[in-house]
Amino acid sequence: MRAIEWSNGRLKLLDQTLLPNKVEYIEATDHSIIMDSIKRLAVRGAPAIGIAAAFALAFAARKIRTDDPNIYANEIRQYADEIGSVRPTAVNLRWALDRLLRKAFAFTWSVGQIPDLLLSEAEAILAEDIEMCKGIGRNGASLLPDICTVLTHCNTGALATGDYGTAQSVIVTAAENGKKIRVYVDETRPLFQGARLTMTELLARGIDATLITDSTAAFVMQKGFVDAVITGADRIAANGDTANKVGTYGLAVHASYHRIPFYIAAPTSTIDPDCPDGKHIPIEERDPKEVTEPFGLRIAPVDTPVYSPAFDITPAHLITAIITERGISYPPFIKSLRIFGTEEGRGRSDDN
Amino acid sequence: MRAIEWSNGRLKLLDQTLLPNKVEYIEATDHSIIMDSIKRLAVRGAPAIGIAAAFALAFAARKIRTDDPNIYANEIRQYADEIGSVRPTAVNLRWALDRLLRKAFAFTWSVGQIPDLLLSEAEAILAEDIEMCKGIGRNGASLLPDICTVLTHCNTGALATGDYGTAQSVIVTAAENGKKIRVYVDETRPLFQGARLTMTELLARGIDATLITDSTAAFVMQKGFVDAVITGADRIAANGDTANKVGTYGLAVHASYHRIPFYIAAPTSTIDPDCPDGKHIPIEERDPKEVTEPFGLRIAPVDTPVYSPAFDITPAHLITAIITERGISYPPFIKSLRIFGTEEGRGRSDDN
Repeated sequence: MRAIEWSNGRLKLLDQTLLPNKVEYIEATDHSIIMDSIKRLAVRGAPAIGIAAAFALAFAARKIRTDDPNIYANEIRQYADEIGSVRPTAVNLRWALDRLLRKAFAFTWSVGQIPDLLLSEAEAILAEDIEMCKGIGRNGASLLPDICTVLTHCNTGALATGDYGTAQSVIVTAAENGKKIRVYVDETRPLFQGARLTMTELLARGIDATLITDSTAAFVMQKGFVDAVITGADRIAANGDTANKVGTYGLAVHASYHRIPFYIAAPTSTIDPDCPDGKHIPIEERDPKEVTEPFGLRIAPVDTPVYSPAFDITPAHLITAIITERGISYPPFIKSLRIFGTEEGRGRSDDN
Repeated sequence: MRAIEWSNGRLKLLDQTLLPNKVEYIEATDHSIIMDSIKRLAVRGAPAIGIAAAFALAFAARKIRTDDPNIYANEIRQYADEIGSVRPTAVNLRWALDRLLRKAFAFTWSVGQIPDLLLSEAEAILAEDIEMCKGIGRNGASLLPDICTVLTHCNTGALATGDYGTAQSVIVTAAENGKKIRVYVDETRPLFQGARLTMTELLARGIDATLITDSTAAFVMQKGFVDAVITGADRIAANGDTANKVGTYGLAVHASYHRIPFYIAAPTSTIDPDCPDGKHIPIEERDPKEVTEPFGLRIAPVDTPVYSPAFDITPAHLITAIITERGISYPPFIKSLRIFGTEEGRGRSDDN
């Protein structure tokens, strides 16, 4: 089961809102279909959003009807802004768009060639993602003891990326290396990505996984059941402050209180060196209906006031280490992340 | 909207599993109907369970066909054990049953009079509950600043008791006293009592309430939005360790981390002086389907392993104060709770 499939010039996106009950793909022929899919979380997970956004911009580029490079540049920037605004927190989205824009603005080719160039850049991002997942898994697995119970939040598996995932890649790689891994999975309200997606993926891989409600996490830590907490990230500021699915901050506080290591696993494309700290990360708010009417089930009175941030910010001092495909970053992150924040390190270079 | 109505010899229980979508009452003509209602949380909340259990035992007493006091005593004890086993954590359930048993075993009356005596004792527990709620509200409201945002978990309102509630009585009484109170309400998975019940009650009373998912609680505390956390309790051990709806322990850790006062509001019937500490409180586990198929909505793969404790234990050292109808108990609770733990203080006396 793959979140994003690209073959024979056709992009298919798995509609993850229907899992685990239905496996249905969205035929993405247009950038607006991709944008809508990202918005309603049919495709989700920071790396997967980046990949989908790259294809969206490549598709949009086909629509621009001009030979004038300046007009072209203007129009493609507008498309990128439009796509980039769909989910403001995840930096991979902006990262992928910027990477394609740099390609478009290189101007070593004629305007007419740009759509094809962008498409191959989108393909490259998808392909690189597979290596990224492997690297995160390899680096992170080294941190886990041979017998270990991990707690995780949301979905960071194949459905969130092009391949094994981020935090989940650490779990799966450790298990493949022969370690005895048990997992507690937070169901992850409001959209139940832990219950719907992570449980589906872990059970399919034969990993010993147990579903809990989000507010059971502290209790299993109190009982001494948890050796490590690992989550993904949607944006990591230069100082290590990390935006991730709401609930992550609470887990980090609980992990600290119970003296359990708390790891973030994310590709270097999630690091935003231009963002000094968590205060500068915009927090997307979701539709109240996701809380009051999950998947059509009404659980609150009509017109209930709701506060539903999609993400929260975990301050760097609560994070034990940040696992990337290029290595493990330890505090002080302001220094250790800078290594990955360079052009070369971040894979942000324009080299082919 | 009342959880329990007793008039003209008929007991009606509001089926809270159908809220907020439907208001339907269960006609409770038999103790087994009441037991089933307690089991599936149609009637819930520690005080309300105690009241319902008292009526259940009174109804069961009618069925005993013997004039022999020893056989009668044996049979009524069996009924009490049966009713008491339905929900093992809430001590009010056992407290109410014990109170009725003491009445039955006084033997100053003939065996034939016992059913009527138990029924009037059940009525008395229901009536006392109203005073209890007022007392908790009055005592607790004094702790809240004039302008204050409170975070609460689960449901502790009229639906959990015979009247205003426990933690919710503190909120409502403070508002009635002219204080400007805002409330964040945890939705409270798995059964969404916060979303379904507390939001319904608070909005009906015109209180400024906002619904959040359980794992958003830490984030609103981090943002400085919360001045106090108040929850109810299902059992309070002699040392102050408190069992309450799962998620309460996590909130207490977060409150401590953010230096926010954390209050428990509960009637003295919730204090169990025979239970030395939290380790001795049995924790009920719920049906996994409440997690994987909330109200029939499937959100996890079939055969997903689930760990679903109904309650967790908050250690006394994380509790700022325990608000009862008889006064406010401060640490060290082992001393301050003992005052309420006496026969007189606990209302456990056999006096009429």
